[in-house]
Amino acid sequence: MLMDVLAGGGVTSAKGYLAGAVAAGIKKTGALDLCIVASDRPATAAGVFTTNKVRAAPVDLSEQRIRRNHRARGFIVNAGNANACTGERGSADAEEMTRLAAAKIGAEPDEILVASTGVIGVHLPMDKIRHGVEQIKLSPNAGGTAAQAIMTTDLRSKERAVRIQIAGKTITVGGMAKGSGMIHPNMATMLAFVTTDAAIEPSFLQQALRSAADHSFNMISVDGDTSTNDTLVVLANGAAENRPIVAGTPEASSFQTALDDVTIHLAKAIARDGEGATKLIEVTVDGAASAEDARKAARAVVSSSLLKAAVYGADPNWGRILCALGYSGAAVNPNRTDILIGDVWLMRDGNILPFDRATAVAQMAGPEVFIRANLHLGSATATAWGCDLTEQYVEINGKYTT
Amino acid sequence: MLMDVLAGGGVTSAKGYLAGAVAAGIKKTGALDLCIVASDRPATAAGVFTTNKVRAAPVDLSEQRIRRNHRARGFIVNAGNANACTGERGSADAEEMTRLAAAKIGAEPDEILVASTGVIGVHLPMDKIRHGVEQIKLSPNAGGTAAQAIMTTDLRSKERAVRIQIAGKTITVGGMAKGSGMIHPNMATMLAFVTTDAAIEPSFLQQALRSAADHSFNMISVDGDTSTNDTLVVLANGAAENRPIVAGTPEASSFQTALDDVTIHLAKAIARDGEGATKLIEVTVDGAASAEDARKAARAVVSSSLLKAAVYGADPNWGRILCALGYSGAAVNPNRTDILIGDVWLMRDGNILPFDRATAVAQMAGPEVFIRANLHLGSATATAWGCDLTEQYVEINGKYTT
Repeated sequence: MLMDVLAGGGVTSAKGYLAGAVAAGIKKTGALDLCIVASDRPATAAGVFTTNKVRAAPVDLSEQRIRRNHRARGFIVNAGNANACTGERGSADAEEMTRLAAAKIGAEPDEILVASTGVIGVHLPMDKIRHGVEQIKLSPNAGGTAAQAIMTTDLRSKERAVRIQIAGKTITVGGMAKGSGMIHPNMATMLAFVTTDAAIEPSFLQQALRSAADHSFNMISVDGDTSTNDTLVVLANGAAENRPIVAGTPEASSFQTALDDVTIHLAKAIARDGEGATKLIEVTVDGAASAEDARKAARAVVSSSLLKAAVYGADPNWGRILCALGYSGAAVNPNRTDILIGDVWLMRDGNILPFDRATAVAQMAGPEVFIRANLHLGSATATAWGCDLTEQYVEINGKYTT
Repeated sequence: MLMDVLAGGGVTSAKGYLAGAVAAGIKKTGALDLCIVASDRPATAAGVFTTNKVRAAPVDLSEQRIRRNHRARGFIVNAGNANACTGERGSADAEEMTRLAAAKIGAEPDEILVASTGVIGVHLPMDKIRHGVEQIKLSPNAGGTAAQAIMTTDLRSKERAVRIQIAGKTITVGGMAKGSGMIHPNMATMLAFVTTDAAIEPSFLQQALRSAADHSFNMISVDGDTSTNDTLVVLANGAAENRPIVAGTPEASSFQTALDDVTIHLAKAIARDGEGATKLIEVTVDGAASAEDARKAARAVVSSSLLKAAVYGADPNWGRILCALGYSGAAVNPNRTDILIGDVWLMRDGNILPFDRATAVAQMAGPEVFIRANLHLGSATATAWGCDLTEQYVEINGKYTT
């Protein structure tokens, strides 16, 4: 299967999607902070939401609507205020946001999803949002400004779009995301939005999104904190005029590949842009006894504060890798484990190998550090991504006050 | 029940215990690094060991002996080398250490326990250990030097001893511990050793130690990494000549109180002495639906990198506390939760309260910061301890190389 990456592509790359963004004044900086993304026709919708028991009002509303309708016309997102811990008024505000967006694009409020990110515990400035929605101009070329409008403390906006052929039709999958920057106190949230012009049967879309999330956003760790607002939503509007894709077909597999590409790309972008990060860490665990073990082991290594600090210092500290594998909860036999940093073998079948320190340090000096472990207990594999732990992380999170 | 804290007390405060320590040259610094603690008569023994699947040789050996014999005459401990990932030779070295200590004190090797802490993946310098054991002089006043000999990168040695009356007999419980300093690359381990002159029925001693561990060492977090060598051992030699204490009696309850005091004191000392730490954080969760929920919730808060950084910066960031409660896995209803920092209420029944920022900051400025949450879902309670996250943690773990 050939897949083209669309340079500069994003959430409006697929057919039939429009976006618009404005600086509504929710962020104090005057930057873009409110956007709408709309499909020109009803789309099948699926979503994956935070597992945190403390959930923001827009998370509950969007999840309810997706569960009930399995379809949507678009979504409205603001940054600068998470609308979390805001009680009944927060729920009413989230609903009003969907009414405003619905009126703007000529849809029913029930067809609109909503997400918010930013400060917790402060009510939304609804007057600014009402005024902002009025100012929004929708266009098929505004995916980039929408990606900027959902940023909080991200240093870079995060977009991706790919194109594939499925059963003779050209299918585009595009998306945007923002990182789990809890830089400023009470800031939260990973948000990601994917749009496609493929026609997709609703239950397969939900299944495909869950699988994509499990291999992308659920495999990244910046600091181990799961926010109150995490949201991943996909819309599939059928503008590509393919036969609706159902589970278990070659078409389903092709679509999954494209969706995985977009979500993994966005997830890695979030890890790379972690607070204070200077390096992306990619940890692959092979030979695990089960898929769950592989995932646990990869995540334990990439989440270890000690390993993250060692990567920062370019220290080929295999002891911290082995130690994290050991406490991951996965079945691990230290006498059979292989560990590599880059292509330098540090441990093979549990034996510590002599290695050239300068070569190993060089493998950790660049902006991407690859760590591999083979547990030799089965055939399951998983990859996780994270970032190094730097003094700047502490500075950002310790020194900026409410 | 009255309990006296013995000033300067430690692992030889109870009757019938001797200790001795030397600088055997295992540590490059020339500091004390090898010690023996011995009971003048056989003692009932219990132990709790690391859950990490990657385990050092001495951990396996000590656990086997405790499981099989439930008694011991003493233990030998070295710092500077963890004897972990050292294969069959590592096991042979651990056994030899117990033979050396056994010969020294006139016991069987099978009656000696062993622990090591320090560099992973390097064989023990057995010649130095043999010579060191020869030099050791045992005395009833050497608990303090033993506590120094088990330190790796700890800044302070950690000791505690208390005295209580049980059924007309004076019972002493004393102990020493070292922190989970993984400061130098490949360094590991929390070690703690408790001695008492009480006579205690073996199965109750194991049960009491497990309970003590669950309320002390298992409730502290420095950086979330569980080492390959974690060991907690208690010896009870009966020199106090009490009737052996069995479970479910008032005597058992008194002994548990004394044991908890010693283990909690040592655990807090480890948290306070965490790498780069400037503050001890104590998190108490009340009103949880179950004991397990209370423990999960307290540990999630005290382990949150974001909260740890906020404490460092004296930032009364209730959002990070609520967020950590939410993802802890405990049942949490954000609309009923109370949160306090020190005695400043930040949230009551889920309502964010206006608070005086200067007062709240002042509660976080000292060397001990108290955080309380009431979940109002039950009556279970738990307390966890940790330390703040500072630039120095990153510096220590990122910049010092193998």
